[in-house]
Amino acid sequence: MIGKTTWAIPEGYIPEASNGPEPEMTSHETVCILNTTDQEAEANITIYFEDREPLGPFQTTVPSKRTKHIRYNELKDPGEIPKGEDFASVIQTNVPVVCQHTRLDSRQAENALLTTMAFPAD
Amino acid sequence: MIGKTTWAIPEGYIPEASNGPEPEMTSHETVCILNTTDQEAEANITIYFEDREPLGPFQTTVPSKRTKHIRYNELKDPGEIPKGEDFASVIQTNVPVVCQHTRLDSRQAENALLTTMAFPAD
Amino acid sequence: MIGKTTWAIPEGYIPEASNGPEPEMTSHETVCILNTTDQEAEANITIYFEDREPLGPFQTTVPSKRTKHIRYNELKDPGEIPKGEDFASVIQTNVPVVCQHTRLDSRQAENALLTTMAFPAD
Amino acid sequence: MIGKTTWAIPEGYIPEASNGPEPEMTSHETVCILNTTDQEAEANITIYFEDREPLGPFQTTVPSKRTKHIRYNELKDPGEIPKGEDFASVIQTNVPVVCQHTRLDSRQAENALLTTMAFPAD
Repeated sequence: MIGKTTWAIPEGYIPEASNGPEPEMTSHETVCILNTTDQEAEANITIYFEDREPLGPFQTTVPSKRTKHIRYNELKDPGEIPKGEDFASVIQTNVPVVCQHTRLDSRQAENALLTTMAFPAD
Repeated sequence: MIGKTTWAIPEGYIPEASNGPEPEMTSHETVCILNTTDQEAEANITIYFEDREPLGPFQTTVPSKRTKHIRYNELKDPGEIPKGEDFASVIQTNVPVVCQHTRLDSRQAENALLTTMAFPAD
Repeated sequence: MIGKTTWAIPEGYIPEASNGPEPEMTSHETVCILNTTDQEAEANITIYFEDREPLGPFQTTVPSKRTKHIRYNELKDPGEIPKGEDFASVIQTNVPVVCQHTRLDSRQAENALLTTMAFPAD
Repeated sequence: MIGKTTWAIPEGYIPEASNGPEPEMTSHETVCILNTTDQEAEANITIYFEDREPLGPFQTTVPSKRTKHIRYNELKDPGEIPKGEDFASVIQTNVPVVCQHTRLDSRQAENALLTTMAFPAD
């Protein structure tokens, strides 16, 4: 049973611009979820903003013994996350998973990367 | 109750130069605070230096169910954090929050990024 | 006894392209393992994908009081990890170690870097 | 009492080349130590390699309520850490501190950055 069922990522920002071939070099904000359990993981993602109510939950699943790398800029339901605006996120699951946060920023000609393990909240 | 009430970030440095459009591409050092509780969070930020007394606390608030991304280069009271100098910071709050450290460095033509979860101290 | 015996890294991606002199500037995905114990560490690395069964274990050893920085793009047995595809990894050892994840991405002319401590799962 | 007395950083690499003005843009590998206690911290840094005995301890101090950002490429006693070679490090102190790992890589024209909190081992 590797992981936790609640993870938090205070940093979030989808750059408005991109350089380079899509979708590989499209600026993106990603949460990588690893589910090593024998069960499918149901994940609920909630987005927090600076000046209005949270948006969500965005619902997704990660099959047993699989990983899913979710680009926040591709989420559509129950809404889109605005580009160029600060946000944060919380991921909640029904089985233990591990979550990692990554951004590729290609606003300028050469891409920049950042990553960190999310904060295990339970 | 997601998070802790004391967080530490040993790395801190506000680059003296920037390239690209302001304020988006201004070199900055940021702490992202996420408050998922039902209460407003009161946050006190203390800055530690290499060769003199700590500066602070800088006081701010993060509303209930909101995030705030605070650029250290915009803090003014009780003083400004000098650019081009190493520092560290400690964030203390009255309710549990989660803190993440991010820097955008645009001293050179292409920006570089770094991030890490802050260290949860309690 | 520094460390843990199970570590997880949800992010994984070996860029398909590289710029600059090999092997120094070849795009790579790395796990750095530190073994401070008095015993050789036997490590088993399992790779998780989005849409098929896990691959592994890849077996390696880290001598007592040594570090080993393992490039995932150089692993050959029991298979190669495909480039340009999302994956995740779990490292399991017989003695406590510490694991850190690093990527150098040289798809564009200037290299980008990311790192994070892996998630200690036990 | 913020922090721990033993920290591990499995990743370590001092690039052999640099671009840009020294020392600001010199490629460097850094450990940032924050001492929030009322006592001076005595720190011992040990370097681990892939194929030979550990080097150290490098001894330094961090005054009470101060931070120190130590560039591994400037350490001289009891030896220098070779450039262009993989290593790892362990930091041990007599009072609790917090340690963060940062690299600036300026081998190419535009600098890249990485950071992570070190692993708290006790």
